[in-house]
Amino acid sequence: MTVSQIASSSLIEIAQHTRQAARELAMLSAAARNDAIEAIAQALESMMPEILTANSADCQAAEAEGISKSLYARLKLDETKLKGAIAGVRDVGRLPDPVGKLEIHRQLDRGLILKRVSCPLGVLGIIFEARPDAVMQISSLAIKSGNGVILKGGKEAIRSCDALVKAIRFGLAKSEVSPNVVQLLTTREEISALLKLDEYVDLIIPRGSNSFVRFVQENTRIPVLGHAEGICHLYVDRAAEITKAVEITIDAKTQYPAACNAIETLLIHKSIAPSFLPLVAAVLRERKVELRGDDRAREIVEMLPATESDWATEYSDLILSIKIVDCVEDAIAHINTYGSRHTDAIVTEDNNVAKLFLAQVDAAGVYHNCSTRFADGYRYGFGAEVGISTQKMPPRGPVGLEGLVTYKYQLTGDGHIVESYSGKNAKPFHHQDLPLE
Amino acid sequence: MTVSQIASSSLIEIAQHTRQAARELAMLSAAARNDAIEAIAQALESMMPEILTANSADCQAAEAEGISKSLYARLKLDETKLKGAIAGVRDVGRLPDPVGKLEIHRQLDRGLILKRVSCPLGVLGIIFEARPDAVMQISSLAIKSGNGVILKGGKEAIRSCDALVKAIRFGLAKSEVSPNVVQLLTTREEISALLKLDEYVDLIIPRGSNSFVRFVQENTRIPVLGHAEGICHLYVDRAAEITKAVEITIDAKTQYPAACNAIETLLIHKSIAPSFLPLVAAVLRERKVELRGDDRAREIVEMLPATESDWATEYSDLILSIKIVDCVEDAIAHINTYGSRHTDAIVTEDNNVAKLFLAQVDAAGVYHNCSTRFADGYRYGFGAEVGISTQKMPPRGPVGLEGLVTYKYQLTGDGHIVESYSGKNAKPFHHQDLPLE
Repeated sequence: MTVSQIASSSLIEIAQHTRQAARELAMLSAAARNDAIEAIAQALESMMPEILTANSADCQAAEAEGISKSLYARLKLDETKLKGAIAGVRDVGRLPDPVGKLEIHRQLDRGLILKRVSCPLGVLGIIFEARPDAVMQISSLAIKSGNGVILKGGKEAIRSCDALVKAIRFGLAKSEVSPNVVQLLTTREEISALLKLDEYVDLIIPRGSNSFVRFVQENTRIPVLGHAEGICHLYVDRAAEITKAVEITIDAKTQYPAACNAIETLLIHKSIAPSFLPLVAAVLRERKVELRGDDRAREIVEMLPATESDWATEYSDLILSIKIVDCVEDAIAHINTYGSRHTDAIVTEDNNVAKLFLAQVDAAGVYHNCSTRFADGYRYGFGAEVGISTQKMPPRGPVGLEGLVTYKYQLTGDGHIVESYSGKNAKPFHHQDLPLE
Repeated sequence: MTVSQIASSSLIEIAQHTRQAARELAMLSAAARNDAIEAIAQALESMMPEILTANSADCQAAEAEGISKSLYARLKLDETKLKGAIAGVRDVGRLPDPVGKLEIHRQLDRGLILKRVSCPLGVLGIIFEARPDAVMQISSLAIKSGNGVILKGGKEAIRSCDALVKAIRFGLAKSEVSPNVVQLLTTREEISALLKLDEYVDLIIPRGSNSFVRFVQENTRIPVLGHAEGICHLYVDRAAEITKAVEITIDAKTQYPAACNAIETLLIHKSIAPSFLPLVAAVLRERKVELRGDDRAREIVEMLPATESDWATEYSDLILSIKIVDCVEDAIAHINTYGSRHTDAIVTEDNNVAKLFLAQVDAAGVYHNCSTRFADGYRYGFGAEVGISTQKMPPRGPVGLEGLVTYKYQLTGDGHIVESYSGKNAKPFHHQDLPLE
């Protein structure tokens, strides 16, 4: 056997145990699942010293290898951050139960009752970078939604993840939920093996760089919740109020430039460009934003030239490409060509133009007179965000707990057969909707 | 250029035209879409002679090539069948509008309003066998849901499909909907090219054999709505009422054995097997069903032996495999191992056992005391069925018009920026749900 065969055979066993444990979890009441989440929070509290020690060791090793400042900041857990994450675990316990929701309740005929009921997906595979706090958040979301979870964290966080999963499983052992619902993988080889387990894993959520997410999407038959790119646009219409347009541009570009919902391209209507562009360019430059424009933009304000590849690039940095367009239709066409279907916004006081933009731009989020930075599960009021999807099919956009459940059709009869509803003397169906209790 | 390159370059143009026409369609009101559907119905009526002539030519050619009786029956259109299909087109016009449905309506903060609104997917790619009536049904469902559609029918139906699409486009030309929303492909090469158009096509619905559906699933990055297999089970529990169990078994196996929701395997609790199996076996044999059993079944009734591969086979024919199990848990384990997550049923008077079965069987449909043959969009009251999905993620099970739409988040503000909700003096979000109008 090769190393990767060994990894995959032991991984199948892990996946089978997780699935079995998840089936039992799926039978538990919301109260039992919430009790398990509280048990996790308590175990994390009681094992804080071990967790912080493990994290210190990770941080020292990472420093010795010279990781970047931003990676280090994500890796580092201190008492405050850990307490915050534990409070986050308890917040998940307080979210509404996503399982067992009656979505359809219908009498097909006398005594033949159809229910569509939300239920857990089964087993989630979550691959994330060196962010130990993700372990706590994801495990509690998985249990809340009745799912098992197989975690694989970045190698820099290996000691921290191990200590956290130990604490989580220790907590679960005191609850009705089997500790087997939360599993941690530790080797890189296991990622490829995990992606092949379409028989055992129902959803993969990759959290990482664009190229990593694309790698995952292209190397698995398991459904993937995530987005490879966030190329978001702001279009400033001829009928925009200039003050709003400047404020929204600055927020959407600079409030957190590394976020996927930050804008990469600013589209400006030609008739407002002479007054708007010099103003916004001055403020953007104060904020250290590099500007790259098309020819018409560069006639108004001096800046670097934008090339074709700029329109298709997610800078994730203080860089903004700028294009002057003739009309809203051109703006829409540009967005539908180069955008990543994430979030695109228009600034205008003309409601008909806004209506056209919101209808025709093909994106999960279409915004009017506000910043693209609002695209976020917490800001939308979902209580949690498990990912942002730029797929066209639901779940789409910021996805909360809703993305971790599916549904089943339950049909209950009393000996009903289809033959009675067929042929010449076929009985009719009633299709009478009943209360959603 | 090779033939396939030519096919794909002209296909890209077709797809672009379809997408553009679909964008315009998406802006129209429900009334305008319904008027277009009525215009299609009228055009089909006025062009009945041409359609029937084309179909006769297809049927003659198919007979000359010696196609099977069942394929011929599907291919053949007579006046009655055509009129029925046209009535079906008008039925689609009367379905509730799936587009523009307000799913979430929430004030995030004063003046910052979030709406989640259902919207068309864009362009559908439908590949079907020699069933000309599918052209009418699918085109009307696509227009109802605001989508463009690229159709590819079986080669035996080429003249019929051509005449039907001509009539449909003739009807659309008299409506507000561009005829470009309905396109017909005619060559086999175009199927592979179509599957590569993930930039232009949003959903593929393959209708055909298991192996064809699997081919499609494995050869495209476009989401696929469909099921490769329907391996459905009936479990007769120790607490089953025998009369019900016999009637349901007969219906589920023989009412239409080629259907995907017919059962392939009958699981019987060991304690009811001695009384139930001889009875049901006698009736099944009257209906010409070949029985294949495990050792314990064969001790009770003489039949062919079932091998391991029987449990994993969709016969789509008058063959039934039979297994005796020790308990409901064993039945559930068998179904979760060999089933295709389509539809599985239990017969029992013990509600606790039924509850366990419905919770733990991992399938889109879990039934109690009724036939698996009810798994169907019309029977569920969806008014139409665009496919049955055995994927775990929604849409799952029989899928109606709901499967042809997605949603968008529309956020409207008045200059709102995220900076105001960040940092020390962060404003809070209200998250107040508003009426779903």
